[in-house]
Amino acid sequence: MTNIVWHQHAITKGDRQKLNGHGSCCLWFTGLSGSGKSTIASIVEQKLHNEDVSTYLLDGDNVRHGLCGDLGFDEKDRVENIRRVSELSKLFVDAGLVTIAAFISPFKSDREIARQLYESGEFIEVYIETSLDECEKRDPKGLYQKARSGEIPNFTGIDSPYEAPGAPEITVNTTELTPEQAADLIIGYLRDNEYIK
Amino acid sequence: MTNIVWHQHAITKGDRQKLNGHGSCCLWFTGLSGSGKSTIASIVEQKLHNEDVSTYLLDGDNVRHGLCGDLGFDEKDRVENIRRVSELSKLFVDAGLVTIAAFISPFKSDREIARQLYESGEFIEVYIETSLDECEKRDPKGLYQKARSGEIPNFTGIDSPYEAPGAPEITVNTTELTPEQAADLIIGYLRDNEYIK
Repeated sequence: MTNIVWHQHAITKGDRQKLNGHGSCCLWFTGLSGSGKSTIASIVEQKLHNEDVSTYLLDGDNVRHGLCGDLGFDEKDRVENIRRVSELSKLFVDAGLVTIAAFISPFKSDREIARQLYESGEFIEVYIETSLDECEKRDPKGLYQKARSGEIPNFTGIDSPYEAPGAPEITVNTTELTPEQAADLIIGYLRDNEYIK
Repeated sequence: MTNIVWHQHAITKGDRQKLNGHGSCCLWFTGLSGSGKSTIASIVEQKLHNEDVSTYLLDGDNVRHGLCGDLGFDEKDRVENIRRVSELSKLFVDAGLVTIAAFISPFKSDREIARQLYESGEFIEVYIETSLDECEKRDPKGLYQKARSGEIPNFTGIDSPYEAPGAPEITVNTTELTPEQAADLIIGYLRDNEYIK
């Protein structure tokens, strides 16, 4: 990347945080398909919005069809997908929003690369901990069944590994907590650490 | 893209616009290198921020090193760069922000593809009209000199075409207007069309 001159953008992340009246950070949800990431993320977003917190939720729904529409599901493309999402969520944090990124993101190395893009404290890894057995029992999208029958290759937990976080900032055990309780736990973390009031 | 289930996100663009107290849209700046895009974009952002409008500025500075860090400068990669920026700015508009995308974006077809991602009225093409002669005279980054000497290939205006917009929403002639006046013209458009109060 030569021939790029860096400008100082006049309005900074700090300016935007001040306008919004709260800090910005990335809540990075990781967990198996069916673990409850999207459900919990959606409740977190609703609760934050109700408190006038500016949020944005990034997930397969709004990224896979657009920005990452050129990518498939083999390991190489899934790594590139997570790389782009990491850079994307960093821009949203720079824009002053509490950003929720909800992706299986099965590989430790990818999540580490994401974390390193951020300033200290901006990247909050949220492990949605649900056993494979439980996820497969729920199978809300029928994907495990398809994966077991060989219809979907490289499916995390079946024929592709899921590497659980070693030291996530937040662990949510969805067999112990309801989605509502899980959302409250996460918002409590944001409040305790003064991202929001 | 199979095996993706669409969720209804609970918090919508409309909810976020309501929280912010203004509409969201993409101000898509196009023009030659040195035409004044970055300078004017920066002033627009400052003025909007001073009126408590939530904004974000996307340009080579925050995109080329990160999200598009894997792309070079040949025609294929430049097209992919603009495709990603289009999708990216659409997400920021969905997030409720007045989004400024400032890229040379020399090809009509690429800007048309960008426009078609948006709902009616959300994409505002801003043509920063400055003659090649004037841009080359200014040459704030010394890039035209490098391009003329063959050091930078595929440079827009020199050995790669710039296709001016046929019917941009806003045309800014920088030999007639100061950057400050140009910014006021753009903000006037946003006010007249009720994106902002």
